[in-house]
Amino acid sequence: MQNWSQLFATRADRMVASEIRELLKVLDQPEMISFAGGIPDPALFPAEEFKAAYQELFEQDDHQAALQYSVSEGYKPLRKWISGRMALQGIACSEDNILITSGAQQALDYLGKLFLSAGDTALVGWPTYLGALQAFNAYEPAYQRLDAHGNRSVKDYQAKAKSSGGTVKFAYASTDFANPTGQTLTLHERKGILDLAEQLDIAVIEDAPYQCLRFEGKALPSLLELDIARSGDIEATRTIYCGSFSKTLSPGLRLGWVCAATPVIHQMVLIKQAADLNSSTINQMVMTKVAESCFDEHVEKICVVYKERRDHMIAALASHMPEGVTWSRPEGGMFIWVELPENMDAAAILKTSLEVANVAFVPGHAFFADRSGRNCMRLNFTSCGPDKIETGISRLGRLLADLISSGSVT
Amino acid sequence: MQNWSQLFATRADRMVASEIRELLKVLDQPEMISFAGGIPDPALFPAEEFKAAYQELFEQDDHQAALQYSVSEGYKPLRKWISGRMALQGIACSEDNILITSGAQQALDYLGKLFLSAGDTALVGWPTYLGALQAFNAYEPAYQRLDAHGNRSVKDYQAKAKSSGGTVKFAYASTDFANPTGQTLTLHERKGILDLAEQLDIAVIEDAPYQCLRFEGKALPSLLELDIARSGDIEATRTIYCGSFSKTLSPGLRLGWVCAATPVIHQMVLIKQAADLNSSTINQMVMTKVAESCFDEHVEKICVVYKERRDHMIAALASHMPEGVTWSRPEGGMFIWVELPENMDAAAILKTSLEVANVAFVPGHAFFADRSGRNCMRLNFTSCGPDKIETGISRLGRLLADLISSGSVT
Repeated sequence: MQNWSQLFATRADRMVASEIRELLKVLDQPEMISFAGGIPDPALFPAEEFKAAYQELFEQDDHQAALQYSVSEGYKPLRKWISGRMALQGIACSEDNILITSGAQQALDYLGKLFLSAGDTALVGWPTYLGALQAFNAYEPAYQRLDAHGNRSVKDYQAKAKSSGGTVKFAYASTDFANPTGQTLTLHERKGILDLAEQLDIAVIEDAPYQCLRFEGKALPSLLELDIARSGDIEATRTIYCGSFSKTLSPGLRLGWVCAATPVIHQMVLIKQAADLNSSTINQMVMTKVAESCFDEHVEKICVVYKERRDHMIAALASHMPEGVTWSRPEGGMFIWVELPENMDAAAILKTSLEVANVAFVPGHAFFADRSGRNCMRLNFTSCGPDKIETGISRLGRLLADLISSGSVT
Repeated sequence: MQNWSQLFATRADRMVASEIRELLKVLDQPEMISFAGGIPDPALFPAEEFKAAYQELFEQDDHQAALQYSVSEGYKPLRKWISGRMALQGIACSEDNILITSGAQQALDYLGKLFLSAGDTALVGWPTYLGALQAFNAYEPAYQRLDAHGNRSVKDYQAKAKSSGGTVKFAYASTDFANPTGQTLTLHERKGILDLAEQLDIAVIEDAPYQCLRFEGKALPSLLELDIARSGDIEATRTIYCGSFSKTLSPGLRLGWVCAATPVIHQMVLIKQAADLNSSTINQMVMTKVAESCFDEHVEKICVVYKERRDHMIAALASHMPEGVTWSRPEGGMFIWVELPENMDAAAILKTSLEVANVAFVPGHAFFADRSGRNCMRLNFTSCGPDKIETGISRLGRLLADLISSGSVT
């Protein structure tokens, strides 16, 4: 056997198998109830629409183009549809501001590639999306905590970045119903992030996969919309918006997008060309058809179901969680964030929970760049129906109550 | 407008727009005949089989899984089918040795990511596949010329790599009907590459997208097969094989694979997880059906057509090229490599050719890490029918004859 590790790049040290993923390999056991995934309910996919779209496509005269290579920036009608939607959300742009990616995850990888030399600094939430940390880690950055309230000086950010061997390159934020907390940034926080980015003269990455999944309350302007309002035009903005079809229509086609000023799009097209040439042509053509035919109705439909599940989970938490446990109440998205008493360790509890309660979740420390947040857990409410939610939360509540009363987990 | 370039990572300097691609934007003009692409003929895609496979899929009970996320290593039945095929080619392996990627291009990007820290050295052909240089460039390597004949000492490679700030990490080679030359490595050269890799203790990346497109002659053992013969078992090999469905069934689904020892596969699964989670689930399921139903027959069918086109192009070159021009005679694949008299510059000729002769090709320097090879050109023979091949080569021959006789291009 080769000694591979001596041949691997230094970045491989930061790309290690997750112990949580190992633990969660037991998810297919029959009694298991999982709140661990971050996935939509497959029963809600618009399968009939996708079926019809693939069929229609093969009846078109130009169907062979669907099986061929295509341009790296993406299928023009899809980019047009997306730019039209962005405009409806207050973001005036054209298809030239859109790059199609294989999910928003690929956009994060490419943005890490575009901005981060080893030792550069990314500002991220504390906690933040685990997949963003994984994507950025490949480019060996340092992380600092993004503070949206102006409590840290620009000099402080810069000095710390310098001591890590680079400069601050971007602030990364998920604006609505963030993974993992379910929280939505206030207008004040959004403006605070843009203020900070201006002062530091850095880019802003806005990760917005859940934005359409709003169950209630009024939508706030996106960072990119606020940036356009300040800058006058998308071409003058510093914000790079990452969207996705994975949480609305389907993750199985692997399609997302980036919306940004054209110099960023041009550079990302070069990255995509070198990295995978183009996202699946046939899937882009099919997604265009399905988005045109049913996007709004479908999103409305899944929001009704997901809202009910959120309500069920909130009610179940209120019924079954012991004293000292608190949780977020998201206005949309897929996740509820639970905080346990400070001396508890959710990673240790997960092991017990999988063995004793048959309930899975993701322990909070996975979402912190410094692996803090050990007393937190992320619960997904979109992939189980009401009965499983009730049963699972009741089992988890009993386990936590037992642990707290026995003092056995610290 | 932001000053983006100051925010970009240092690698962005090596990811610049290709001037050739700019020139080739005129390809859709009606009179243009293009030998520039590296693409299959879309008229030959097994569209009926793909149509049937997408339809069948949606009639299955588990069709919703096709629209869901899936595991990063890839759809197990597809990995099984591939490992079965690899075994037929003399490479004993299991599905655990297979990672599904979004085309072989993505495999090259991930291998760059896995092995190359900035300043490390990759050994490549002179010329080599342009897309490999583009993929690796993102990781800021140095390049050295791979010599398969043992004419350079190990110390020489190592000293030069050290002076570039790293070590030699891998040798990259396309074994059969290589892009751009159409050449196939001899058994002696294959063994020479493995010998060198052993002496340097580096990995070997075998890029084999054209391997199945053999029109004549006897197939030679792949580098991975030879490596297994030396090492005893795939787990002890240093060779990483990259395969693709793009040149056989369809590039539009974006599916390829890596076949290698499991420690490499495991690390690449982590890379894929962080970079795009998984390749399109539905496309993997569909490709499995189509590969199972018609792979061999379909490849046989396209080889007949492509062989005819190669023969037409060879005949046309013989008829129309002036004295002093030579070309390769590939036993398969998609490309013929043309060498002009040494004082000619194919990039300059391309400009004239697009304006005067309405014929497109790719100038040779694009395929050299040091931008040499200016008197060479790559011609693709798979995307035009016989008439266009005859007309295009005749026009190109006339242009070259004119230029040579007038001495106007040097």
